[in-house]
Amino acid sequence: MQGLRVVLVSPRNPLNIGAAARAMSNFGFTDLALVNPYDLAFREAQSAVNADHVMQAATVHDTVASAVADCQLIVGTTGGDHRELALPLQRLEQGGTLIRESGAQVALLFGSEKYGLSNDDISHCHWLMRIPARPQHSSMNLGQSVAVCLYELIRSEVPEVLPVAPAASHQQLNVLQERMAEVLALSGYADHTATAGADQRLRLLIGRMGLSRRDAEIWLGVFRQILWKLRH
Amino acid sequence: MQGLRVVLVSPRNPLNIGAAARAMSNFGFTDLALVNPYDLAFREAQSAVNADHVMQAATVHDTVASAVADCQLIVGTTGGDHRELALPLQRLEQGGTLIRESGAQVALLFGSEKYGLSNDDISHCHWLMRIPARPQHSSMNLGQSVAVCLYELIRSEVPEVLPVAPAASHQQLNVLQERMAEVLALSGYADHTATAGADQRLRLLIGRMGLSRRDAEIWLGVFRQILWKLRH
Repeated sequence: MQGLRVVLVSPRNPLNIGAAARAMSNFGFTDLALVNPYDLAFREAQSAVNADHVMQAATVHDTVASAVADCQLIVGTTGGDHRELALPLQRLEQGGTLIRESGAQVALLFGSEKYGLSNDDISHCHWLMRIPARPQHSSMNLGQSVAVCLYELIRSEVPEVLPVAPAASHQQLNVLQERMAEVLALSGYADHTATAGADQRLRLLIGRMGLSRRDAEIWLGVFRQILWKLRH
Repeated sequence: MQGLRVVLVSPRNPLNIGAAARAMSNFGFTDLALVNPYDLAFREAQSAVNADHVMQAATVHDTVASAVADCQLIVGTTGGDHRELALPLQRLEQGGTLIRESGAQVALLFGSEKYGLSNDDISHCHWLMRIPARPQHSSMNLGQSVAVCLYELIRSEVPEVLPVAPAASHQQLNVLQERMAEVLALSGYADHTATAGADQRLRLLIGRMGLSRRDAEIWLGVFRQILWKLRH
């Protein structure tokens, strides 16, 4: 999502500014704007040893209007209720869909740590987005709010293919079953003359292990060794 | 989700411990366990002025095994790739569904800020869950990781009903249209003898405003005043 700008309005804590920039980098966003930040906080965040490319490229503005001047859709975030319903209020997952489907240059506004967005900040927005925190404790940490909102925005992107351990082959499992049956017999756990029912129960027991190819090799080795020991 | 325990393994930073507890409270989770925390960090987090009920009730353990002893499903979190595929790896949203549907007492493990979960920590898990951060910058802040995972877990709970501003009635809009038509005529914008086409265009223009009942009242007042001024 290249068309999204994160706008922090009057942030006061350098750790929060840095955390917001870090979450942006984690989730692939690059455009950070700060409105009227506490000066020392901004300099501290920007000069931190772990300040990344997002923080380095952040722009600073005197007003919300300046920070969002080239944007077509301005969305404010809130943990609490909508004040007097001056604007439509969307739940985060619905809002995320609206933002992704807008095709617009979007500004996502986060208020100061203590007071959130002011009524004046909100008057620049098209609608508000509510993070579904508990009503009894809806005030979220700024860096965490940014992380949760950005996660929601990238959540339904084309899922990456995660690596999966190759499963054991049927033949591996057959050999394992034979070896195990012999161990059970030699050890006295089962009668030497295996019945069809016992075979089936053993096959099911091994099947429920859900073995990977690699773990099947380990189990084959374990039973080979036990077998060797039992025979000598 | 009462059956979920957040387990922080070897956390080092009191701010991160506090942030994790805060996110838990935001999203309605109460069961926090710390394994081998840096002692000073834990005491500092627990005595912070804003330490909440989650932090106060946190339990401290020497080992992962002790922290998860009564759990039936142990899930580790990771930003990076799965080491050697020792365990199945789920994307966060899939993992969230598995956790919600398990009906089990679940432990969700988060590693230390610097190293994440160790191979030994991971050996206690049933599977791992990956937060979909960029592979180029997948190392997330601990407090933000906790917030994002817990958000995913409560995300599809029965959505709360958000307040919606009541819409304007058809009659309000009709009166507004009449008043506006008169203003347009008196001001010389439109001819006094309104045509059917002009009426329709005006109705569509007003319809596209998507007015709430309250905003319709404001516009009615605005045009009443303009009308009064134009007539005197």
